[in-house]
Formats: sequence, structure tokens, C-alpha cells
Amino acid sequence: MLKRYLPLLSWLPHYHRRLFGADLLAGIIVTIMVIPQSLAYALLAGLPAVVGLYASILPQLLYCVFGTSRTLAVGPVAIIALMTGAALSGVATPGSDEYVQAALVLSLISGVMLIAMGVLKMGFFSNFLSHPVISGFLTASGILIAASQLGSILGIESAGFTLVERLASLLPNLAQLHWPTLTIGLGTLVFLVAMRRYGKRTMTHAGLPAGIADLLAKAGPVFAVVLTTLITLHWGLDEKGVDVVGAIPSGLPALTFPWPETSLWRALLIPALLISLVGFVESVSMGQMLAAKRRQRISPNQELIGLGSANLAAGITAGMPVTGGLSRTVINYDAGAQTPAAGAFAALGIALVTLYMTSLLHYLPIATLAATITVSILTLVDISMLRQTWRYSRSDFAAMAVTIVLTLVEGVEAGIIAGVTLSISLFLYRTSRPHSALVGRVPGTEHFRNITRHDVDTASHLALLRIDESLYFANARYLEDTIYNLVASRPELEHVVLICSAVNLIDASALESLDAINARLKDSSVTLHLAEVKGPVMDQLKQSDFIDDLTGRVFLSTYSAWRELS
Amino acid sequence: MLKRYLPLLSWLPHYHRRLFGADLLAGIIVTIMVIPQSLAYALLAGLPAVVGLYASILPQLLYCVFGTSRTLAVGPVAIIALMTGAALSGVATPGSDEYVQAALVLSLISGVMLIAMGVLKMGFFSNFLSHPVISGFLTASGILIAASQLGSILGIESAGFTLVERLASLLPNLAQLHWPTLTIGLGTLVFLVAMRRYGKRTMTHAGLPAGIADLLAKAGPVFAVVLTTLITLHWGLDEKGVDVVGAIPSGLPALTFPWPETSLWRALLIPALLISLVGFVESVSMGQMLAAKRRQRISPNQELIGLGSANLAAGITAGMPVTGGLSRTVINYDAGAQTPAAGAFAALGIALVTLYMTSLLHYLPIATLAATITVSILTLVDISMLRQTWRYSRSDFAAMAVTIVLTLVEGVEAGIIAGVTLSISLFLYRTSRPHSALVGRVPGTEHFRNITRHDVDTASHLALLRIDESLYFANARYLEDTIYNLVASRPELEHVVLICSAVNLIDASALESLDAINARLKDSSVTLHLAEVKGPVMDQLKQSDFIDDLTGRVFLSTYSAWRELS
Repeated sequence: MLKRYLPLLSWLPHYHRRLFGADLLAGIIVTIMVIPQSLAYALLAGLPAVVGLYASILPQLLYCVFGTSRTLAVGPVAIIALMTGAALSGVATPGSDEYVQAALVLSLISGVMLIAMGVLKMGFFSNFLSHPVISGFLTASGILIAASQLGSILGIESAGFTLVERLASLLPNLAQLHWPTLTIGLGTLVFLVAMRRYGKRTMTHAGLPAGIADLLAKAGPVFAVVLTTLITLHWGLDEKGVDVVGAIPSGLPALTFPWPETSLWRALLIPALLISLVGFVESVSMGQMLAAKRRQRISPNQELIGLGSANLAAGITAGMPVTGGLSRTVINYDAGAQTPAAGAFAALGIALVTLYMTSLLHYLPIATLAATITVSILTLVDISMLRQTWRYSRSDFAAMAVTIVLTLVEGVEAGIIAGVTLSISLFLYRTSRPHSALVGRVPGTEHFRNITRHDVDTASHLALLRIDESLYFANARYLEDTIYNLVASRPELEHVVLICSAVNLIDASALESLDAINARLKDSSVTLHLAEVKGPVMDQLKQSDFIDDLTGRVFLSTYSAWRELS
Repeated sequence: MLKRYLPLLSWLPHYHRRLFGADLLAGIIVTIMVIPQSLAYALLAGLPAVVGLYASILPQLLYCVFGTSRTLAVGPVAIIALMTGAALSGVATPGSDEYVQAALVLSLISGVMLIAMGVLKMGFFSNFLSHPVISGFLTASGILIAASQLGSILGIESAGFTLVERLASLLPNLAQLHWPTLTIGLGTLVFLVAMRRYGKRTMTHAGLPAGIADLLAKAGPVFAVVLTTLITLHWGLDEKGVDVVGAIPSGLPALTFPWPETSLWRALLIPALLISLVGFVESVSMGQMLAAKRRQRISPNQELIGLGSANLAAGITAGMPVTGGLSRTVINYDAGAQTPAAGAFAALGIALVTLYMTSLLHYLPIATLAATITVSILTLVDISMLRQTWRYSRSDFAAMAVTIVLTLVEGVEAGIIAGVTLSISLFLYRTSRPHSALVGRVPGTEHFRNITRHDVDTASHLALLRIDESLYFANARYLEDTIYNLVASRPELEHVVLICSAVNLIDASALESLDAINARLKDSSVTLHLAEVKGPVMDQLKQSDFIDDLTGRVFLSTYSAWRELS
């Protein structure tokens, strides 16, 4: 019981020196690797760079206690940073104190929501985000993020939260184009792409062991950061107009307990919900994938609690909303992390950097970070998915396309809300016109088949109608129409038998429709019967007056209805 | 074809004198009866009383041309007036010119939406409003409307759009209590309730024919209007503080073509959608009920066009959103209307009143109208429905209760949105954990049954899993969990056969899950097979690479899978 709520207890008691060695190494590697992206994602959200470091310390530590994945690394991630920026700019001016405060409130709300969903076992809620919607959202967000970084790479100011706004704000300022910034930005970009694509292969060819070559290739951003920082420092480029990270306060973040005004948390409610859901889906699918590789399991509902406490921690330690990050987790996993202790070591590592080494980051150019974000984010953009989905299912494609277009044109929130709404609506639309078939008896047997497809016995005064779907509000009226049309088209009809073998549920709306059908058929002197009603459905029907009012009978099997009525 | 889009053509060519006589009589009766309620509902929406008359002229005429119900009477109705008031007070100050203008814009948007839904055959959209949500919404709205009229009956000012706001605004002003107003309001209330309950019976006892007694009892509001107007005029009560309708401009409304600003129509989009849906559901269910009584049919999609053009007409003739009204339709039907011409005659009658008789309405007390609204609206309040629904289904009850509470506490829009969201979520939740069963062979037959319920043959290296639901995004992950748990609990397993006899659909999310299951089972050396895949589902699967990648085979029947693998 305690182990279930404190997954820490499942590995800490068996911890030993060999695990410690592996975890420590992974922790050190992660510390070095994630500093550039932590700074970059904070900037992407419109927050001071140091917030990204703060958000990588206590949140990760708490996840180690409450999370169930052994290798997940928690911190700021690109998509969540983008959504955070969009949410915050709705309630405060970027750069203001209120903006930073609102980020804490957003983290807190998101933390409370995640924990509440975990306690109430509502992890299934994330299932409402269908794969096409998520994949469309990731692609569109990737494009949006790349566009948002374009200004920093070119050395031009840009603003806005949709693609059009971003590009429109760039154009008039093209004359500002700043060559030293462009050189650093573009240089980093080319270097990172080359490292990603050819780094490992080249270094293996040069004789390095595959593991080290892989690690070095992944460390591309670290080299870029060190190199461009040194260049900027050496030539004093920051005084020649290259934007740099600048002074970062050293020391650990102060604990704060923001107590938001009603209007603020109300305004952040929907954004926080979307951030929580998207973050959870991202994190849990990655966690499941990695756990499966090592034959481990993660518990989605406990993951909600783990990610929720991480976000609460971000809220009280001057951070920003966090979740399990793809790139930091992959680094952690590949570096050989065995238990969540690796994450804890990385958190301690970043805490040490925040305490003693922030001055080293002063001359780090923003353009380097922008190039880092751009390269890592473009892996999310998956255009081939569009073609595959189009081939497989037009309605899934529609949900995906709407998500992409609206995310680009109207922003992240509109995009994801529209995608979810559309995919649910399309599903409801499909179930709102259930398949039904008039059936007849296969001669000489007790089997009944569709009369349009098989050569079966029928009786003109008797209609046996099989409904292939549960009856509920979205198809209740369709059922009425089907039966009224049937009765109107066959004046000789005396009995209608509804075969309910595929009906797992009759809700209150469908019950009212059945009542109405029963009453209207009675007016036309047609008797309504039911057949093959499942046990639980029958139990529920007995809670209403329907069975008493039914003009006909309830038959156990279609065959007994046929024998009695034909 | 033309008849389908101009239902007028189906009755006008066969029109003859006997129909004319019946329709004319019904038209005159409706004209007299609906004037009080038209004025009252305009006031309920916070608009000048005369707007209610304007909205009963051209909208009704257009409905006669484009609508399919023979007896539906179109005009302002209570619920829509309440929703209109709530929507408008969000964008303008009641009493201002902008407020009146916004009402026109709201009508126009609602008209455009309804017509668009009709043309696109999206009448099914209204199915998303389940019966419990509608009935809860009507009950709560009835209570809200009654509370909103309490101030006018007591002669006290009140404001607000939720129950709490209304009651809170009444309390501090209780000292203003105006006795003459209270006498008129309460007197009308008691008179109307008595007429409703005992009027017909008493007059029949007194020897009047039942038809006339019924009509006279229904004319209660007309008597009350005439009587209290005369009393107010005679004793000059309007100068003693009794609020009256006051000067109404005479003449027909001017044609206007409001061209809204973007911000205005954006703000009114959601309210207009809700007003359109609620109005459509109300109107079409009543239309269907009455059409059924006379063995006629109405076409929901053409009804959308009829109601849409009525709202467009309201928008350009200084009106307010309209729909088919319960009380005015019942009056029309009971008065013997045979064709939509009756509605046209009533529209012409109200036009004549607007032209020549508005001065007669000057001394009509507001309290009389408030009492009229209250009595007619309280028929919507149906508390017994709550108990019935609780008995039948807890989740339907939850949707109903949430709708009622939120409508009362947060207002009409929040109420209906929450109700719809909750009922859809509960349905998705149910389908997100589909029933599935491991089956085995009934000895000596080709039938397969649930192994926990029947004594069947099984094989330890073979699992036959039947899924009783279409596979889609909401249950895709549940399917993965089910199969992974199955494989984890039976290490000797070599083959898993998914029996898809009840699967009508596999969407892109479920396809990805199947892909993942296939890959993961492959890692564990377990082969995945499918059986009894329906034709259309198989056609769709062939559009993807899944069938090629599948480690096992696709069997036509469960029995052939059993024969090959056991």
C-alpha cells in the first residue's frame, strides 16, 4: 500500500554500490546536457533563463519520490514552454513581475489538477486526446516554436503566438538583421544538424567506441554553448549587439507560496488543464515505451501524482510547469541510469551549477540557445504522418488537419481544443447512426441473418430488427426514425421485435425514445417486443415503468420470438 | 425537389375555402392570445416590449414558407428570451441602443447557423443534448425565470442572471415593496392559476360547451391583461408608481441590416450556437409530437432552414431570437389550425395590432406580464423527473443534476455546456473500458463462449480474446493494458487471437495501439492473430501496413483459428 503511493520504497531499500556508480555517471552527464535546454525553454516561455534551472531541481527530486518510471527525467520541455508562454501572455505582460508570478500560479494549478486526477484515478481522461490530434499538435507546435526562434537566430525582434503573427512581426524588421548574431545562430544550427546526422558515424569511423561517439554526438549543444560563449567573451560580441543570457542571480531559488487572486486562477484554469493533459500524455507514453524496453511497468495514475508533485514543487521554487522531457529522458536512459537516483543526482548537479557557476553562463548568446531549440524541436514535425492518416481514415485526418491549421493560425489552445472536440464529435456522429438490420430465420435452424444478404424465412406481419450499438442519447432519435419509417413502409406489420444482443447500455434518453416508440406503435396497433436483452440492461429497465407499459413481451431469444409470433 | 426546399408548395396549391375558414379563426385566436406573452418575453430578455411583437410578424411568415410543421407557431419563447438576456448583458448595458442592436446581431448569427446546419444536414447535432440535460435545463430555467419575475410582481427592482444574484438583489430592496403593484401581480397570479386548474371544469359545469370552455380558460392571460389595464387606466395607478408598458411606437418595424463588428459577433458566437440548438430541440420535438398526432411528418433538416430564416427575419426587422413556442403552438393547434396559413394570419393580425392598436397597451402593468410569465413557465419545472432519473441511471442523474445546479448558480450557458460535456464524457468513459472476454470452445461444436461462465475447452498456449466494442481513441490504451496484463499473467502463452466480431470501427489511434501490441508481443515471442474481422474494417486495415507487419494471421472464423493453433 505504502509502496504504491511511494514508489521510492520499491527500489531504495535494495540500492547498492553498482547501481550508485551507474546512476551517478548518468546524473553527471544529464546535468551537463540539460543546462542549455533548460535555459532555452524558459526563454521560449518568455521567462528569465534561470527559471529553467530552478524548474529542474526540486521538481525532479519530488518526481523521484512519487513517480513510477525508473528513467524519466522531469523538467521544462518545449511544448509545455510554448503553451506556458501562450497562457501567460493572456494574463500579464512578458517581462513583468506579474508574468513570473503567473507562471508559478500556472504550475501550482497544474500540479493540483494532476494530483487530483491521480487520486481520483482519472488517468483515462488523457485518452480523449487521440493519436492524430496529438501528432498534429506536436507537428504544428514544432513549426510554431521554430518560427518563434527565427527572430533570435537572425537577431531580429519578433512577437506573437500564432504563425502569422510571428512571421508578420519579423518582416518589417528584416533591415535590423544583425550579422554577428546571424553567424552564431546559423553556425550553431549547421553544426548541430551535422552532429546529429553525421557526428556518431564520423567519430566511430575515426576509431572511437560507439557508446562514446554517441554520447559526444548528443553533446553537440554543450560544445556549441561552450564555444559560442568563449567566442562572445573573447571578442566582446555582447557589446556589439549580440544578445546574451546576461547576469543570472546565483543561489538556490527562494521558497514562495503564491496565493493567487480568484480572477487569475480562473483565467489560468483551462490553460492549466491543457498543459496538464498534454504534459501527462507526452510523459506517460514515453515512460511506458522505455519501461517496456526493460520489462518494467509504470502506473499511469501514480504518474499523475508524481508529475503533479513535480509541478507543485515548481510552483513554490520559482519555476515553471514541467513534465517528463523527451530529450532529457533519452539522455538519461542512454547514459545508463538504473533508478530514479540518477534523476536526483542530476537535480543536485543543477543545484550546484545554480549555486556556483551561473557567472559562466553570462556570455552565452541567445542565438545559440535558439538554434538548439530549433534543431531539437524539428524532430517533432512529422509530415509523413499526414499522408498515412489520410490513407487510413478520412475522419482521423480531418481531426489532425484541423488541429494543425488551428494551432498555427489561432494558437496552441484553440488548436488542441478544436482537435479534441472534432475527434469526439466525429466518433459520436458515427455511433449516432448505428448499423441495424432486419433479420430472418435461416431455414431449418435457430439462426437469424440479415434479410438483404441471405436467403432467409420472413413473415410479412413480423419485423425482427437487430440494433448493432448501445442505445444512448446520440442515437435515440435515429432509432425512432428507423422504426417509424419501418412501420410507415409496411402497413401489414403487426409485431416489431427489437433484438438487443449488441446493446450494452440503454440510457435515459434512449429509454424515453423507447417509451415514445411503444406509445406510437400502440396508436398504430403494432406491438413492440424485445429479444435477447442482456442481464444488466434488463435489470436497469426494471427500474423504470417501461417493461410494465410495453405492449408486447420480452423474449429470451430471437428464435422464441419467431416461434411465438410468426 | 423544389417541394422539399419550399414546403409551402405541398399545401398551397390544394388550399380551399374550408381550410381557409379554419385557419382564419385559429389565426385570430392566436393573435389575441400571444400578444401578452410576446410583450412579456421581450421584457424578460431586457428588450423593449414592442420587440416581442416585431419578432412575431415576419419570422412567422417566413417559417410558413420554409418550415415543414403544419401547426408550429414561431415567435419569442421564454427559455430563448432568458438565454438572449444572459447573452446580451455580456456585451452591452441593458436599456442601451447597443443592447437592442446586439439582439439583432444575435438573431442574425443564430439564423445563419441554423440555415447552415440545415443545408449541411447537421440536424443530428441536436442529439448531443440528451433528454436528462434538456429536462434539467428547462427545470432550472423555469426557476430562474420565475425568480426574475418576482421583483416585477413585488414592485421591487432586481437584477442578475443567476438565482443567487437575483435573490440577493431583491433582499436589500424589500422595503420598496409597492402595495398596488403587489396587488395587481399577486391578483393576476392567483387568477391565472385558478383559471388553469379549475377554469375549464367550472365553465363546463356552468353549461358551456367543452371546446369554448377550454378556449376561455386558455384566454385567462387576455382577460387579466384587459382587466388590469382598465384598472390602471381608471385609477391612474401608473402615476402612483405601478410600472406600465408605456408608450409603444406604432407602425411596422423598419428594415435594418446590422453589420456587426468582429469583436461583437465573436462574443455572441457561443451564445448563438446554444440558443440555436436549444430552440431547435424544443421546436422540433414539439413539432414531431403534433405531426405524429395527425399522422404527418416533419423533416428536421428542413426545420432548421425554416427556423433559420425566421431568425434572419427577426434580425432585419428589429426583433429578437425566435423559435417554435410551446404555448403559442398549442393554442394554434387547439384552435383548429389546418395549414401554416393560420400562422400567416396570426402574423398579419399582430402586424395590424402593431400598426393601429399599440396605444391600447400603454397602461398594461408590467406586474401582469410578470405574473403571466411565471404561471406559464412553472409548467416547465418538473421535479419528479429527478427522482425517476435517479432510479433509472446514476450517470444520467449526474448530468441532470449538474445542469440544474450550474444553470441556477452560474447561469444558462454554463449550465447547458456543463450538462452536455458531462453526458458526453460519461458516455465516452463507459465505452473507454469495453467489455472483453476470454472465450473457449463449447465441446464438440464450432461455438465459443466466455470461459468464466461456461464449461469450455481451452489451450494454455492460446488466448482467444473477444472485444465487445469498436476500437477507437478512448479505449485504445485500455486494449493495450488488457493484452499486456494477459501476456504478463500467462508466461506459457504463444498465440493471442483478437476476435473482432463486435468491432465496427478501428480508428487511427487504435491502429497505432494494435501496432504497438504487435511489436511488443513479438519481443515476448507471442504471435498476434485477428479473427472475424468485418469487411469494411478489413478494407480499412489494408490501407495501412498493419496487416503486412502482423506476426500472425487473419482468420475468417474463431473456429478456424482454434483448429490451426490449438
